[in-house]
Amino acid sequence: MTETGVVYYKAESLKEYCTKLFESVGIPNDQACIISESLVFANLRGVDSHGVVRMGTYMPRLKVKVVEPVTKVEIERQTVSAALVDGKNGMGAVVGSEAMKIAIDKAAQTGIGVVGVKHSNHFGTAAYFTMKALGKDMVGIAMSNAPSSMAPWGGRKAFLGTNPISISVPAAECLPIVFDMATSVVARGKIILAAKKGEKIPEGWAINKDGEVTTDAQEALNGAVLPFGGPKGYAIALLIDVFSGILSGAAFGPHINNLYTNLSDPQNVGHFFMAIDINKFVDIDLFKKRMDQMIKEIKQVDPAKGIKEVLVPGEIEFATEKQRSQTGIPLNRVVVDELKQLGEEYGVDWTLSDLTLS
Amino acid sequence: MTETGVVYYKAESLKEYCTKLFESVGIPNDQACIISESLVFANLRGVDSHGVVRMGTYMPRLKVKVVEPVTKVEIERQTVSAALVDGKNGMGAVVGSEAMKIAIDKAAQTGIGVVGVKHSNHFGTAAYFTMKALGKDMVGIAMSNAPSSMAPWGGRKAFLGTNPISISVPAAECLPIVFDMATSVVARGKIILAAKKGEKIPEGWAINKDGEVTTDAQEALNGAVLPFGGPKGYAIALLIDVFSGILSGAAFGPHINNLYTNLSDPQNVGHFFMAIDINKFVDIDLFKKRMDQMIKEIKQVDPAKGIKEVLVPGEIEFATEKQRSQTGIPLNRVVVDELKQLGEEYGVDWTLSDLTLS
Repeated sequence: MTETGVVYYKAESLKEYCTKLFESVGIPNDQACIISESLVFANLRGVDSHGVVRMGTYMPRLKVKVVEPVTKVEIERQTVSAALVDGKNGMGAVVGSEAMKIAIDKAAQTGIGVVGVKHSNHFGTAAYFTMKALGKDMVGIAMSNAPSSMAPWGGRKAFLGTNPISISVPAAECLPIVFDMATSVVARGKIILAAKKGEKIPEGWAINKDGEVTTDAQEALNGAVLPFGGPKGYAIALLIDVFSGILSGAAFGPHINNLYTNLSDPQNVGHFFMAIDINKFVDIDLFKKRMDQMIKEIKQVDPAKGIKEVLVPGEIEFATEKQRSQTGIPLNRVVVDELKQLGEEYGVDWTLSDLTLS
Repeated sequence: MTETGVVYYKAESLKEYCTKLFESVGIPNDQACIISESLVFANLRGVDSHGVVRMGTYMPRLKVKVVEPVTKVEIERQTVSAALVDGKNGMGAVVGSEAMKIAIDKAAQTGIGVVGVKHSNHFGTAAYFTMKALGKDMVGIAMSNAPSSMAPWGGRKAFLGTNPISISVPAAECLPIVFDMATSVVARGKIILAAKKGEKIPEGWAINKDGEVTTDAQEALNGAVLPFGGPKGYAIALLIDVFSGILSGAAFGPHINNLYTNLSDPQNVGHFFMAIDINKFVDIDLFKKRMDQMIKEIKQVDPAKGIKEVLVPGEIEFATEKQRSQTGIPLNRVVVDELKQLGEEYGVDWTLSDLTLS
């Protein structure tokens, strides 16, 4: 351990372990691989709030089958460019992968593919889906609603989820733009992680159950997080719920069942996926060349006092991915213990080596 | 005058006056009506920064023909769901109206219409276009880039425009959701208006040309405004430029010519329009009923201390529109004088009555 309580593991080993855990509750191997890949993808990119820390929430839900272990999505309506997909209460990462594929296939035909999804579950980090568009020379867009945990601007109680949105855009020589954010000041997962680590959170992130500002992570989880960017961020979160929840016929706001506290009712989460085939608008080579130009020029803007350099969306995550591919993924001891305990509970051998010790 | 320096005018009178001014520089009547309507629409809704205050900028550009008085858009590429439109350096409000119509027509066929626009100009308030989707039971989306005036997050100088985005969503009994925002903390137009009125601006809105925080409106206009919501708002502004500028082949960031200072080169502004035919996803009646439910429920959330009620996007603007349709549109004396002066310069009689005096 190089830091107190932190252990490093190979991405591949973590992925295998999680896959086995998923298989132990009846998820087919190909689908188990997708979910594990999505979680470890988040850890590799430094988005630990959406990484293997989620296993402790996913597994009990699968065990009691409040989430279907076998995902079989169904296209309920469709046109050449649009589709409504019923996720049939399958795992969000699998449902999302299928839906994104449909959006990409439609975009390849007509330039645009839009897929609304209902009856789904927590789908992990949204960038996992939008980055699938990059290799097709497309722009990828993904949104999801989430259980109520965020106060509307000017409100005292939670109504909206921290509804995330991701947009990925290919470039030529430069790394692609990969934007992925929660519409709260910070992802609720970061507060979950802080609570798990017993750490305080900064002021402005959340309010307690009485509507007062709090720095206590556990109090924040019992209260509500706040939208980023004040009324504008609140409006964006609301619209993501319209696109994900109402356009698809899924649940919205407080009607989405909580995945942490409700082990009896399906969540009925909704998503929205979109792919744009760039070549249908402008020549892809020109587009990519101009993306490079934009990225290079924006990085040449003089940084403000105290700032090292101007960054573009995704840049930090790509750097972290490069580093963690070499050093391994650092996991907090609490998370490691939880993973080991899951292995005991579900009969999966913990065979992962601590890279720091080896 | 009920307030010092404020005069009230009928929307219809202002519209007629602006239309005549536009016709005086060779804009055909139907197109002149569209532009005036867009400006007065903004004033009616309380978005004075995008109202008739713009005449003083638009007219000289039309006079020297750095903007084409006669707008003739051309579809350069298209599929059943997508189109690339060349605005041929016409007036933004006219180009945008044509492009939104194409998006709506395509959405009526395939559920989705996406239109990229290049070689356009300042298009006024984005809600003017997205609200056209409402009557068709569609969701409308509009974005535009704008001349560089906003620093990227962590940067010292302007690079991006205050790139606006609007999304309109129909409801049943409730008023529709009409979201329209600039990606700066506030619209640059509000700083222009403050500078015109000689008013200070709050801290946090902008930096001066040396990258320092300023409360002087004129210094702010010479410096850079700041993105809303920190790095997240910056990323959204950057992506709006990708959608509006790079996907369409228009200019982007600092390559968009300034409409205030450059009277010799076309701006080459880019836009992005999208329409979603709701019925292709879920039954429109169910959708609207659930929008009503969402709006009513969110407004029932207890307000935080010092807040009267939780609002939904567009609510303030609809209330202002209702009020101003009765009282008339309040214009600052400086703006009135500018409008009168334009009349003298372009040979259009000022026949508007001050409603307060009549």
